Amino acid sequence: MNYIAAAIAIMGAAIGAGYGNGQVISKTIESMARQPEMSGQLRTTMFIGVALVEAVPILGVVIALILVFAV
Amino acid sequence: MNYIAAAIAIMGAAIGAGYGNGQVISKTIESMARQPEMSGQLRTTMFIGVALVEAVPILGVVIALILVFAV
Amino acid sequence: MNYIAAAIAIMGAAIGAGYGNGQVISKTIESMARQPEMSGQLRTTMFIGVALVEAVPILGVVIALILVFAV
Amino acid sequence: MNYIAAAIAIMGAAIGAGYGNGQVISKTIESMARQPEMSGQLRTTMFIGVALVEAVPILGVVIALILVFAV
Amino acid sequence: MNYIAAAIAIMGAAIGAGYGNGQVISKTIESMARQPEMSGQLRTTMFIGVALVEAVPILGVVIALILVFAV
Amino acid sequence: MNYIAAAIAIMGAAIGAGYGNGQVISKTIESMARQPEMSGQLRTTMFIGVALVEAVPILGVVIALILVFAV
Amino acid sequence: MNYIAAAIAIMGAAIGAGYGNGQVISKTIESMARQPEMSGQLRTTMFIGVALVEAVPILGVVIALILVFAV
Amino acid sequence: MNYIAAAIAIMGAAIGAGYGNGQVISKTIESMARQPEMSGQLRTTMFIGVALVEAVPILGVVIALILVFAV
Amino acid sequence: MNYIAAAIAIMGAAIGAGYGNGQVISKTIESMARQPEMSGQLRTTMFIGVALVEAVPILGVVIALILVFAV
Amino acid sequence: MNYIAAAIAIMGAAIGAGYGNGQVISKTIESMARQPEMSGQLRTTMFIGVALVEAVPILGVVIALILVFAV
Amino acid sequence: MNYIAAAIAIMGAAIGAGYGNGQVISKTIESMARQPEMSGQLRTTMFIGVALVEAVPILGVVIALILVFAV
Amino acid sequence: MNYIAAAIAIMGAAIGAGYGNGQVISKTIESMARQPEMSGQLRTTMFIGVALVEAVPILGVVIALILVFAV
Amino acid sequence: MNYIAAAIAIMGAAIGAGYGNGQVISKTIESMARQPEMSGQLRTTMFIGVALVEAVPILGVVIALILVFAV
Amino acid sequence: MNYIAAAIAIMGAAIGAGYGNGQVISKTIESMARQPEMSGQLRTTMFIGVALVEAVPILGVVIALILVFAV
Repeated sequence: MNYIAAAIAIMGAAIGAGYGNGQVISKTIESMARQPEMSGQLRTTMFIGVALVEAVPILGVVIALILVFAV
Repeated sequence: MNYIAAAIAIMGAAIGAGYGNGQVISKTIESMARQPEMSGQLRTTMFIGVALVEAVPILGVVIALILVFAV
Repeated sequence: MNYIAAAIAIMGAAIGAGYGNGQVISKTIESMARQPEMSGQLRTTMFIGVALVEAVPILGVVIALILVFAV
Repeated sequence: MNYIAAAIAIMGAAIGAGYGNGQVISKTIESMARQPEMSGQLRTTMFIGVALVEAVPILGVVIALILVFAV
Repeated sequence: MNYIAAAIAIMGAAIGAGYGNGQVISKTIESMARQPEMSGQLRTTMFIGVALVEAVPILGVVIALILVFAV
Repeated sequence: MNYIAAAIAIMGAAIGAGYGNGQVISKTIESMARQPEMSGQLRTTMFIGVALVEAVPILGVVIALILVFAV
Repeated sequence: MNYIAAAIAIMGAAIGAGYGNGQVISKTIESMARQPEMSGQLRTTMFIGVALVEAVPILGVVIALILVFAV
Repeated sequence: MNYIAAAIAIMGAAIGAGYGNGQVISKTIESMARQPEMSGQLRTTMFIGVALVEAVPILGVVIALILVFAV
Repeated sequence: MNYIAAAIAIMGAAIGAGYGNGQVISKTIESMARQPEMSGQLRTTMFIGVALVEAVPILGVVIALILVFAV
Repeated sequence: MNYIAAAIAIMGAAIGAGYGNGQVISKTIESMARQPEMSGQLRTTMFIGVALVEAVPILGVVIALILVFAV
Repeated sequence: MNYIAAAIAIMGAAIGAGYGNGQVISKTIESMARQPEMSGQLRTTMFIGVALVEAVPILGVVIALILVFAV
Repeated sequence: MNYIAAAIAIMGAAIGAGYGNGQVISKTIESMARQPEMSGQLRTTMFIGVALVEAVPILGVVIALILVFAV
Repeated sequence: MNYIAAAIAIMGAAIGAGYGNGQVISKTIESMARQPEMSGQLRTTMFIGVALVEAVPILGVVIALILVFAV
Repeated sequence: MNYIAAAIAIMGAAIGAGYGNGQVISKTIESMARQPEMSGQLRTTMFIGVALVEAVPILGVVIALILVFAV
């Protein structure tokens, strides 16, 4: 039963992270092409944003690993 | 049974946080490219917004951890 | 059974809060970039709006915590 | 069984309130940025609107609390 | 079994009322910002519209309360 | 079993009425803001339209009430 | 079992009628605001259209009533 | 079992007819407002179109009635 | 079991025919309003198109009738 | 069990054919109204296209008939 | 059990082929109306495209036929 | 059980290939109509693209055939 | 049970690869038609992109093959 | 049971990675065609973005492999 639980957790984490990161990074690339002189600042903000987006999914991965091994 | 419950909780938290953060951060980057002189203020608002968005999902992570360990 | 119930409650709370907050905060940032001289007033309204949006999800978190511990 | 019922009720309440409030408040902020001289009137209407939107979800929370405690 | 039924009823009522009210009130606020001189008339129509929208969901709440208590 | 049936009926009625009324009333308010001199005629048509939209959901409410009480 | 069947029938009837009527009436009101001199003709067509839309859902209501009472 | 079958049939018929008729009639009203001098021809085509759309759903209603009574 | 099968078949036929015919006929009416001098030719094409769209759903109705009666 | 299988097959065939034909024929009518001098060529292409679209659904109908009769 | 499997396979094949062919052929007709002098080349490409789209669904039909007969 | 598995595999392959190929080929035809002098190069790219899109679905077909025969 | 698992894995792989590749290749063809002088560079980027998109689905195919054979 | 879990995990990973990568790479190609002089910088950002997007799905693949082999 905990294997199914780990799979559900990692599925949610992958879909959530994929959607959020896809939005953030694609908008960054679009904006860099419009205003090339701001590339550095936009890329810095992108790194912060990706880290913030992946905070919860990484916790989901941790919980999935706990469910697979430690139990 | 509580492992499945933890997985459902973390799945909801990951998807909710991924959607909300993706909206907030991608709009921030788009606005920074349009009005570069407001970068500081927009980034500050983004940090506040991300913290507000992640308030409930972090609680979901906490509940999932309680369901995994403490029970 | 109450663990599953807590997980369903927290999932709904996270998704609802993530959608609502994402809409509110991303529109605020977009509007601040259009009209910088109204930043203060818009940010104040954003705080009120986020508090109003999170009223019901926080209650959902409370009910989930009650279902996990007190029963 | 009533715990699951309470969870379904609070989930519906959270999603309904999150969607409705998100629409109302984000449109208010967008309109305030377009017509700053109407800020007061728009914010007043927003408070009335949020109260009207949350009427049914709050009843859902009440029913969920009844299902958790009083039965 | 009637608790689940009450939860399904209140869930439908909350989602239906949240969608309908969100549409009505957000359009009202958008229209008030476009034509400020019609604020009074639009707000009056909004009150009538919200009452009409909430007619069926309130009946759903009543049926949910009947299912919880009187049976 | 009839309680579940009543809940399904009232859920469908609430969602159907909420969608239909939301469309009708929000378009009415938008049109009133565009052409203020036709407010009376549009509001009259809105009342007729809401009555026509709610004809079938009210029948659904009646059937739900029959399922709760008379059986 | 026939109660569930009646509920499914009335749910489909309510959603179908709500969608169809919402489309028809909201387009009528929008068109009346654009061309006020055709109000009478448009409203007449709306009545015919609503009657045509509600033909099948009303039959669904009839079948639901048959399933509730006569069996 | 045949009652459930009748309910599924009438649900599909109602949704299909509601969608199709809603599309046809709302486009007719929109086109009549654009070109008033073609009202008669458009309304005639609408009647033919509605009859063609409702051909299969009416057969679904007939099959539902057969399933309710004759078996 | 064959009653359920007939209901599923007629449901698919009704939804498929409703969607296809709704697209075809609403586009025909829109095009007739744009180019009135081609009304005859467009209506002829519409009749052919509706017959082609309804070929498979009518076969679904036939199979549903076979499942109801002949088995 | 083969009756259910035939119903699933015919449902998929009807929905697939309805969607594909609806797209093809409605685009044909729209294009004929824009360029009347190409009516013949477009209609010929439409017949080829409809035949190509219906190739797989007709095979689905054949398989459904085999499942109903020959087994 | 293999009849259900055949039905699922043919359902997926029909929906996939219907969607893909509908996109390809409707775009072809739209493009032919815009650039009549390229009709021949576009129609040739359409035939190649339809053959490529239907490669996998035809294999699905073959597998469905194998499941119906040869097993 | 392996027949159901083969059917699920071929269903996913057909839908995935149908969606991907439909996007690729329809865009190719649209682009050829806009820039006729690039027809050769676009068609070459289309063939490469279709081959790349169908790589995974063809593997799905192979796995489905293995599941049908070799087991 | 592992056959069903292999089918679910290959289904997810096919749909994910089909969606991703469809987006990448169709945008490439659209961009090549707009800027013919960049065809070489765009096609090179497309090959890299397709390889990156198919990294995870190919791993899904490998896992499906392991589930079919080696277990 | 762990085979099903591995399949669910790899399915979520494939869909999440396919969506995210598709968004990122297609926007990169679109932006390169608009601003050819920024090709190098955009492609560099694309590589970083793809690596960030695939972080969580690769972890999902690892968990799936653990579930297949090591347990």
